[in-house]
Amino acid sequence: MIAVTHVGIIAKSRLSAATPHLQEVESWLGARNITAVVETATAALMPPSPTRVVADKQALVSRAGLVLVLGGDGTLLSMADCIAQAGRCVPILGVNFGSLGFLTEVTLPELYPALEAALAGRAHVEERLMLQATVHSSSAPQVGVAVNDVVINKAAPSRLINLSVFVGDEFVTNVRADGLIIATPTGSTAYNLSAGGPVVEPSVDAMVLTPIAPHTLSNRPIVIPASATVRVKPVIGDRDGAFVTFDGQAGFELRAGDEITVGRAAEPMRLIRPATRSYFEVLREKLNWGQR
Amino acid sequence: MIAVTHVGIIAKSRLSAATPHLQEVESWLGARNITAVVETATAALMPPSPTRVVADKQALVSRAGLVLVLGGDGTLLSMADCIAQAGRCVPILGVNFGSLGFLTEVTLPELYPALEAALAGRAHVEERLMLQATVHSSSAPQVGVAVNDVVINKAAPSRLINLSVFVGDEFVTNVRADGLIIATPTGSTAYNLSAGGPVVEPSVDAMVLTPIAPHTLSNRPIVIPASATVRVKPVIGDRDGAFVTFDGQAGFELRAGDEITVGRAAEPMRLIRPATRSYFEVLREKLNWGQR
Amino acid sequence: MIAVTHVGIIAKSRLSAATPHLQEVESWLGARNITAVVETATAALMPPSPTRVVADKQALVSRAGLVLVLGGDGTLLSMADCIAQAGRCVPILGVNFGSLGFLTEVTLPELYPALEAALAGRAHVEERLMLQATVHSSSAPQVGVAVNDVVINKAAPSRLINLSVFVGDEFVTNVRADGLIIATPTGSTAYNLSAGGPVVEPSVDAMVLTPIAPHTLSNRPIVIPASATVRVKPVIGDRDGAFVTFDGQAGFELRAGDEITVGRAAEPMRLIRPATRSYFEVLREKLNWGQR
Amino acid sequence: MIAVTHVGIIAKSRLSAATPHLQEVESWLGARNITAVVETATAALMPPSPTRVVADKQALVSRAGLVLVLGGDGTLLSMADCIAQAGRCVPILGVNFGSLGFLTEVTLPELYPALEAALAGRAHVEERLMLQATVHSSSAPQVGVAVNDVVINKAAPSRLINLSVFVGDEFVTNVRADGLIIATPTGSTAYNLSAGGPVVEPSVDAMVLTPIAPHTLSNRPIVIPASATVRVKPVIGDRDGAFVTFDGQAGFELRAGDEITVGRAAEPMRLIRPATRSYFEVLREKLNWGQR
Repeated sequence: MIAVTHVGIIAKSRLSAATPHLQEVESWLGARNITAVVETATAALMPPSPTRVVADKQALVSRAGLVLVLGGDGTLLSMADCIAQAGRCVPILGVNFGSLGFLTEVTLPELYPALEAALAGRAHVEERLMLQATVHSSSAPQVGVAVNDVVINKAAPSRLINLSVFVGDEFVTNVRADGLIIATPTGSTAYNLSAGGPVVEPSVDAMVLTPIAPHTLSNRPIVIPASATVRVKPVIGDRDGAFVTFDGQAGFELRAGDEITVGRAAEPMRLIRPATRSYFEVLREKLNWGQR
Repeated sequence: MIAVTHVGIIAKSRLSAATPHLQEVESWLGARNITAVVETATAALMPPSPTRVVADKQALVSRAGLVLVLGGDGTLLSMADCIAQAGRCVPILGVNFGSLGFLTEVTLPELYPALEAALAGRAHVEERLMLQATVHSSSAPQVGVAVNDVVINKAAPSRLINLSVFVGDEFVTNVRADGLIIATPTGSTAYNLSAGGPVVEPSVDAMVLTPIAPHTLSNRPIVIPASATVRVKPVIGDRDGAFVTFDGQAGFELRAGDEITVGRAAEPMRLIRPATRSYFEVLREKLNWGQR
Repeated sequence: MIAVTHVGIIAKSRLSAATPHLQEVESWLGARNITAVVETATAALMPPSPTRVVADKQALVSRAGLVLVLGGDGTLLSMADCIAQAGRCVPILGVNFGSLGFLTEVTLPELYPALEAALAGRAHVEERLMLQATVHSSSAPQVGVAVNDVVINKAAPSRLINLSVFVGDEFVTNVRADGLIIATPTGSTAYNLSAGGPVVEPSVDAMVLTPIAPHTLSNRPIVIPASATVRVKPVIGDRDGAFVTFDGQAGFELRAGDEITVGRAAEPMRLIRPATRSYFEVLREKLNWGQR
Repeated sequence: MIAVTHVGIIAKSRLSAATPHLQEVESWLGARNITAVVETATAALMPPSPTRVVADKQALVSRAGLVLVLGGDGTLLSMADCIAQAGRCVPILGVNFGSLGFLTEVTLPELYPALEAALAGRAHVEERLMLQATVHSSSAPQVGVAVNDVVINKAAPSRLINLSVFVGDEFVTNVRADGLIIATPTGSTAYNLSAGGPVVEPSVDAMVLTPIAPHTLSNRPIVIPASATVRVKPVIGDRDGAFVTFDGQAGFELRAGDEITVGRAAEPMRLIRPATRSYFEVLREKLNWGQR
């Protein structure tokens, strides 16, 4: 174990409720000779101090030995994508403001015990599958990473898309639908669940292919090994369009002849999880189990 | 019963297989002193003849006492929308080329017996609910009609939309989803079915509200009386957009502050159905019942 | 309007929390020269008084001009079935102890205003479709009624049943499944919802046929007119068995050759509903809408 | 590789169409100095010959180095359960009579090339997860094995059951439903699919927990690691009962206080699969993909 000298901190955009906690965390780290590093958006929530601020998330990721997220799952997702794009494997500790998150499970009262455990190497670090997608087109291939899902979606408001889906070299099926979700276990509780896909416990080494509003009623979600490479060939017509998005946050418009391949990313996300809360406890809370 | 003097004929766009049938039908009608009327697209499939050609579907609808559709359900839908926009109640006889349609149930061998029965007033004419939707915005309201469905859909590729849904003056729920389908019984077997909605037998006087990939898992399809007025208020943000479409064929982009009301159109669609084929028979055939 | 002289009161079995309310209601009615009538089970929750007690629910129904239910939806269901079997049309006022019910919407604080309005003929009385089912077998036909649903279910623990389903004289489909639910709009939010069926607003004049875990994936719920007669012919083999139940409370074992017909009962349920609470409000509350 | 000296052959019960093939296979094996072994039920489909007949499936399994199944998936399932109960790991070759099976993929014309490859050790043998379930009760624990699924189902015709579900020592949720399916990837396309569960490709090392008609609408199928132990505690009341079944073929009635644990069986099923047919090809064929 290598001692952490810099902790990157990122707060949810414009979350002014984070301000006192940002200052407190910085002091707490300082007392332990650890430097807090923030990018400009989070710096805007703190009193001025030129020393700790880096230009952007990429710079933050390159320096930090641990990333602390104050906010919600969306903030953590974008940070995890940034870490993966940098090809690094910095662990992430997510603290929620407000409701419990699937990824930001730590509550404010649990922040310092969790941070202490993480810095001491005593924390439970869970490796979560991340996906890497490549869009092969006539121009240079474009690459994206995802913690939750890679989604291919119709662009036009009213028509479905046709997709030919392969796993490795084997043809799976043609999907006529609003779109197709390729989800990790982590992402199984996000868009995948809305589209009728199953919950996949994060230690299962698999991904899920879930069609969105499929025309063929027997076109059901399929769970495949995480080691597989999924290839999707959309049929793009004159009047139709399609988009591919990563974690619902960024994407490309697809063109006729494009092909998307999706597989395991080089590094997993390293998520620090509280020892006191099981995956199923979060699931019960988030899905309102126990009530009708 | 008023004798039909003009039959409008419309073929699926560029369906060259329709050519011999178009000529044959025209002769068959001529022998009965009935004039065939076609618009320019269908005329392009026939030998030149200036007398029978009208400028467009609207002109065709204004003259015809019966409309004969040669093609598939899509062709019939656009014709039915055109009839409804004209505020007329011309019956439609749909003949399928290729596979059985939900609306184009008559096969080519059944064409002449069906046409003869229709002209003699002996045909079974089913009245099908049509919807009229009005988009209320800061500019002039825009109106659309639909045989199958009025759909409010997210425009952006990757984010859901938020909709407040009312039936009459009663608040139903907020829907966070890819979209919302308001379907007629006729449309219940189209997009509604893909999104998880029920089949509604066409004589039930009702419509179905079906969310598409809803975030709230208990947000289920709801069947409401056809006499109801549905009001939908989308929350349109800076980054998001939404579209409303009618029968998946045309639509408007929605703007912040728009409200959509959907209710029963002034006239139903009048669909001529073969006496020999029940609704459930078509359903079994189209949904592959009897096989796994 | 005929003045109500007797109010039947039924409390949920062994609900001792009802005791003070039973006494209070009796006094309140007495002050208005109205006689409270209870059957023996409810009488056991009250101080002894021979005058008001009748032998059973049937006797209670035959005397009462209004039935007051203190308990939950289950208590109200069994009372409604009893009223329907008697061929009477006594209105029911349902008061819930504990959580809001779909049928017992009135809360304890609303009891007296609601009762007063009901006795004065000012209450909103909703007519709800009830079903009557007849099991035709080699012996005498057996009849049951239902507010929620008639369910045909496999009896053996591990095998599915085969059912041939007809609407009127038209064959619908063969269903291979765990069972088939024939639900009213009122029952659409009960077992039907668990099995994947739609919510049907109670003023829609329809019933829903919903297969339970169907082998054929495209076997979807179907909404049909309430005026229809559904006929179901189960295929009962040597090793398999099947049951038909009414509102999940009573039923018959089916035998080879039996046929079940289900249609509209002679009288609807007459349900007194609070003017202050819409159907959709109850739905939102019961289905946890507004939360994920 | 050890040379196979005895091939057990089992035909579907009373499948007279198998008779010529049984004789032919026996001759084919004899010419290679391999002995065919059949139990009495299959022997009844063949000409009398005392030498090859063993008393039952157990005896057959104890002698055979390979089991050939002529019939359908049901016949193969019962054979696989028998092999697993014997704690052996005999490979199975399944030949279908009639329609393609998920497990009996080999067609009659492919029989001899497949058999030859299997005996030569050139066949593709797929290891499929099998489950072992133990019912812990006041009396001696009872054990069952399953290729497809372990199912806990309500026994009474009309009421749901309450189950507390644990994975390892972690509480997952209380399920109020018709039942709960614990399926292998192999079984994911059987009952699990009917109940709304996902398809799981057989090389994914996982099982699926799928509730049947759950009362709580957000109670969705969950995919968990195959290494997990699932514990289910049913709440058995006076009026209710519950059954546990294995591959839908045999089971026990559960009693109050019983607990069921389900985990990976000691040995997987060894299934010989044709090299020429991919898993997805079988899926497309069986689920009618490509049609609506």
